[in-house]
Amino acid sequence: MSRYWSDGVHGLTPYVPGEQPKVEGLVKLNTNECPYGPGAAVLRAIAAQTGDDLRLYPDPQATALRAAIARHHGLVPQQVFVGNGSDEVLAHAFAALLRHPAPLLVPDISYSFYPVYARLYGVALREVPLDADFRLRIDDFLAAGTNGGILFANPNAPTGVALPLAEIERLLQANTGSAVVVDEAYVDFGAASAAALVGRYPQLLVVHTLSKSRALAGLRVGYALGHADLIEALVRVKDSFNSYPLDRLAQAGAQAAIEDADWFERTRARVIATRERMCEGLRARGFEVLPSAANFVFARRPGREGAALAAALRECLVLVRHFRQPERIAPFLRISVGTEAQTDALLAALDAVLARDREASHAKR
Amino acid sequence: MSRYWSDGVHGLTPYVPGEQPKVEGLVKLNTNECPYGPGAAVLRAIAAQTGDDLRLYPDPQATALRAAIARHHGLVPQQVFVGNGSDEVLAHAFAALLRHPAPLLVPDISYSFYPVYARLYGVALREVPLDADFRLRIDDFLAAGTNGGILFANPNAPTGVALPLAEIERLLQANTGSAVVVDEAYVDFGAASAAALVGRYPQLLVVHTLSKSRALAGLRVGYALGHADLIEALVRVKDSFNSYPLDRLAQAGAQAAIEDADWFERTRARVIATRERMCEGLRARGFEVLPSAANFVFARRPGREGAALAAALRECLVLVRHFRQPERIAPFLRISVGTEAQTDALLAALDAVLARDREASHAKR
Repeated sequence: MSRYWSDGVHGLTPYVPGEQPKVEGLVKLNTNECPYGPGAAVLRAIAAQTGDDLRLYPDPQATALRAAIARHHGLVPQQVFVGNGSDEVLAHAFAALLRHPAPLLVPDISYSFYPVYARLYGVALREVPLDADFRLRIDDFLAAGTNGGILFANPNAPTGVALPLAEIERLLQANTGSAVVVDEAYVDFGAASAAALVGRYPQLLVVHTLSKSRALAGLRVGYALGHADLIEALVRVKDSFNSYPLDRLAQAGAQAAIEDADWFERTRARVIATRERMCEGLRARGFEVLPSAANFVFARRPGREGAALAAALRECLVLVRHFRQPERIAPFLRISVGTEAQTDALLAALDAVLARDREASHAKR
Repeated sequence: MSRYWSDGVHGLTPYVPGEQPKVEGLVKLNTNECPYGPGAAVLRAIAAQTGDDLRLYPDPQATALRAAIARHHGLVPQQVFVGNGSDEVLAHAFAALLRHPAPLLVPDISYSFYPVYARLYGVALREVPLDADFRLRIDDFLAAGTNGGILFANPNAPTGVALPLAEIERLLQANTGSAVVVDEAYVDFGAASAAALVGRYPQLLVVHTLSKSRALAGLRVGYALGHADLIEALVRVKDSFNSYPLDRLAQAGAQAAIEDADWFERTRARVIATRERMCEGLRARGFEVLPSAANFVFARRPGREGAALAAALRECLVLVRHFRQPERIAPFLRISVGTEAQTDALLAALDAVLARDREASHAKR
């Protein structure tokens, strides 16, 4: 705290990203990165831009990248906005579309960055509880009263639970007075994308990232799809903030990634197959696992405390993510889908932790 | 305009960056990029990061890069903030340090992004006129009444005129109640950096970019130097907005650039030498040239209109920047320092344009 700070800065509660450890040999299943590196076409595209032209500013409109994204989704470039990761895209969506007198509706359990943005932009939040099975209920959102916007992740984070597209469409049909932002960071691993609805609902903004299913968390590219009017609002805010958020290498790499359909299909199929094996392995070890449409699972072992289990796994050099809040999810671990070998290491570490506990409880008797 | 826009979005007046033409053969002297590409060490560092690890998030704190910047300036990493270009750093400075009930003081002629930020963040501006020679007068800032912050560029943009360090220190001694932000995007081409004062004045924030003297406009890296309390405010805002604004390639390339002292000294000396030759060439052609400490010059030819001259040069495939506002600078052209060959092309184009005009005026008689 300093007398030079702007009003409100002391009241911010910054987002805490998952740990990026500098420890060798760690099995890192805590930040939902893709276990496989990006394809050769991406690396070639970046290498081709690694030269003298780095002295020049990038294209502020990211024209080629936006065109590639538009083609991929069957849209036009005027329906595409790109940003420095989907986190920046979401931040601009708060400024451009979600700042109204009426509160923004969000699920009570969701991406923990949403309340952080709300504080930064002075947006009032109203949390709508998920049901007992951690499902988002559209009727509860519609019954929540006047809103200045609706924002949720599909599949949801950190639960991995997906909402059917028909439910999203039902929401869009009923809620026409405010923007509906669907954060689809994980959609490629098993949910149906609302991108298909963009042409029909002018209030819909769909947000994607290249950090998960495109294996480019290190390159910082995300995008939004929506009616050209919504995209224009994002552009106005972005061009009042930073003209060039995507550097030349990121634009080139991202375009190559979007255009490499083979790598994309192959890689997400691999991740999905491993996820199913991991779910079986967890259930065989007594875990309850929520149905996941993401590249992570949300699981708890009845009778075990989430934080203690995460700490015990960390001792076995397996890093998973645990959230203390809200209380309802405190028993759970969020475990990213790794490689086959990482999944074996996770399951072996769980065996070791659970065996040690059985010994300890035998010893107590 | 759409009913889904947040309040205030229609009132934004986005910054318009210099044209990034897609025309071959253009002599591009309009966006103050470095005429020489980055050094081999930078390209090697980027290439070394172009691999599997792009699947992983970058270091959100950019620890290695901040340490390199701190060493370069004789500071500690807690005094260093990094962002996606100095434009993003300045945006966060508005949110973190410059948003107060009292107005922010800026020169009436300065970087045209400042009023854009002010609108985005709802910051009231009070413009303090430069003197008749386009010099910033500290006494006029001190006489401007209560302020919520002071922001100026040194050397100033688009004039290139530098303020001596002793004058900045005089301002800091007298203005202790609000943050003083010195935007030093061009400082390496001939002005004294206020970085030397950071240890002594807790209200001072000095902003640098790697887009100019480090030839990395295409990589989007800027930074701020200041007391750890000021840096903490920037970090709080940044971590409420986007945890990872610098991708892995940008962090690696920027670090290599900061550490390559030889390339840096050699390149800025080249640019300065060419600037002096360009100034002589312009004066020999009847131009008034403001004294420049930057990698551009601000010049006018009495009796010639700035916009028409810029258009005529563009016909000769030489692109320079012209600002219509404020009126006092409308006669001027801002011309970036290019290579020796580009400078020759500029001077030849001017000769052609001026000769054509002489013929036209002879024909009229």
